[in-house]
Amino acid sequence: MANTLSHISNIYWIVIEDSVSIVPAVHRILRRSSIPFTYMAYPSPENYPNRGWFQRTMALKYIRKKYRRKGNGVVYFGDDDNTYDLRLFNKYIRKVNKIGMWGVGHVGGSLVESPKVINQKVVGFNAEWKPNRYFAIDMAGFAVHLRVILNSDAVFSGSCPSGAGALESCLLEDLGLRREDVEPFGFEKKEEKEVLVWHTKTVVPDVWDLRRNFWKREKTPKTNGYFVEY
Amino acid sequence: MANTLSHISNIYWIVIEDSVSIVPAVHRILRRSSIPFTYMAYPSPENYPNRGWFQRTMALKYIRKKYRRKGNGVVYFGDDDNTYDLRLFNKYIRKVNKIGMWGVGHVGGSLVESPKVINQKVVGFNAEWKPNRYFAIDMAGFAVHLRVILNSDAVFSGSCPSGAGALESCLLEDLGLRREDVEPFGFEKKEEKEVLVWHTKTVVPDVWDLRRNFWKREKTPKTNGYFVEY
Repeated sequence: MANTLSHISNIYWIVIEDSVSIVPAVHRILRRSSIPFTYMAYPSPENYPNRGWFQRTMALKYIRKKYRRKGNGVVYFGDDDNTYDLRLFNKYIRKVNKIGMWGVGHVGGSLVESPKVINQKVVGFNAEWKPNRYFAIDMAGFAVHLRVILNSDAVFSGSCPSGAGALESCLLEDLGLRREDVEPFGFEKKEEKEVLVWHTKTVVPDVWDLRRNFWKREKTPKTNGYFVEY
Repeated sequence: MANTLSHISNIYWIVIEDSVSIVPAVHRILRRSSIPFTYMAYPSPENYPNRGWFQRTMALKYIRKKYRRKGNGVVYFGDDDNTYDLRLFNKYIRKVNKIGMWGVGHVGGSLVESPKVINQKVVGFNAEWKPNRYFAIDMAGFAVHLRVILNSDAVFSGSCPSGAGALESCLLEDLGLRREDVEPFGFEKKEEKEVLVWHTKTVVPDVWDLRRNFWKREKTPKTNGYFVEY
């Protein structure tokens, strides 16, 4: 992901470990990337319903604090194992005025999940999984202007039901967004819609015996809510 | 992978589909990357024992034909879902004189699989899977100078046993290489060995119904052994 994002200018990367501490090797990757970043560690509270909710909530709080006085930018929630076409950033994300949406490949059982667009208006969603959500879209399929984030205090746990659910839809509704606000991207030409982000997943490595490894283990700083900012 | 390789200068990328035809979307990715490439399609013969053998064999034959008259370069067999630290290319691969080897993360059940090095000499291998192979190393853990390839006609099926086996070891032995030829990389400092390539794997996407997709399918040229060269 660092190799991908380092092609993009004017970007700020917020990386959050679901852990009590940051990981030195990841920290070195970030520093080598020459991308400006903040790297934080916030472990999820016990029995927290969904993986990544708490970390994204902390990111929203951090953004509201950091950018309180100036609000030009677009916020995109990027999974570290998605596959990103470089055009996604300059052709789609950077052009979002309020809330932008586009198709995502290989997500929720669909070959492509995307907004259903007629005359550049979103009238529904092409989705296999829970197609009746108000915004039936994966995290990779939208970006929100910083202004919308700053004008709200919505987070990833507010009114959202627990369990694997309509987290994305819930956040966007809590941010005060409506379907008619959505700017669809990639629907200009009727005959060809190219997918610019893919919900790829990385296999959890099958390592027989982590204890017998000869590689030197690094000591990690044990702190709670530790972060570094560049 | 295109996003990663496009950071590297003086590189030539040979991409091979295990298919009767090249894929237009992949071809477009290659053209956008601005990396010089050859893109070929060679379907594996029926009942061919191992995935990727036949394609790598075709790559070796192509390299021998293309570079017959000038032989400066290093050949590296890169999986498309591995994770590459950019330093791998300039600090390791580009410096190979004959056969270079280094550690690979998350492969064959090991946290790290690597040559066992004493005084910059390879004396064995740290591997969980078949550690007694003559070269107990994954494809991602070595690169061979072009001269060695050109001075041999070894391919990925020659003397190698069928079935999931010691394909890498077999090829290297067929190329006339011995353990004492190996240049180990990343073992200079005793206290810290950083892993520059990870054998990550991408999950096969779980798409419920490929037939119902609304995305327009592209027509692919149906040819046998079709290729494009830039």
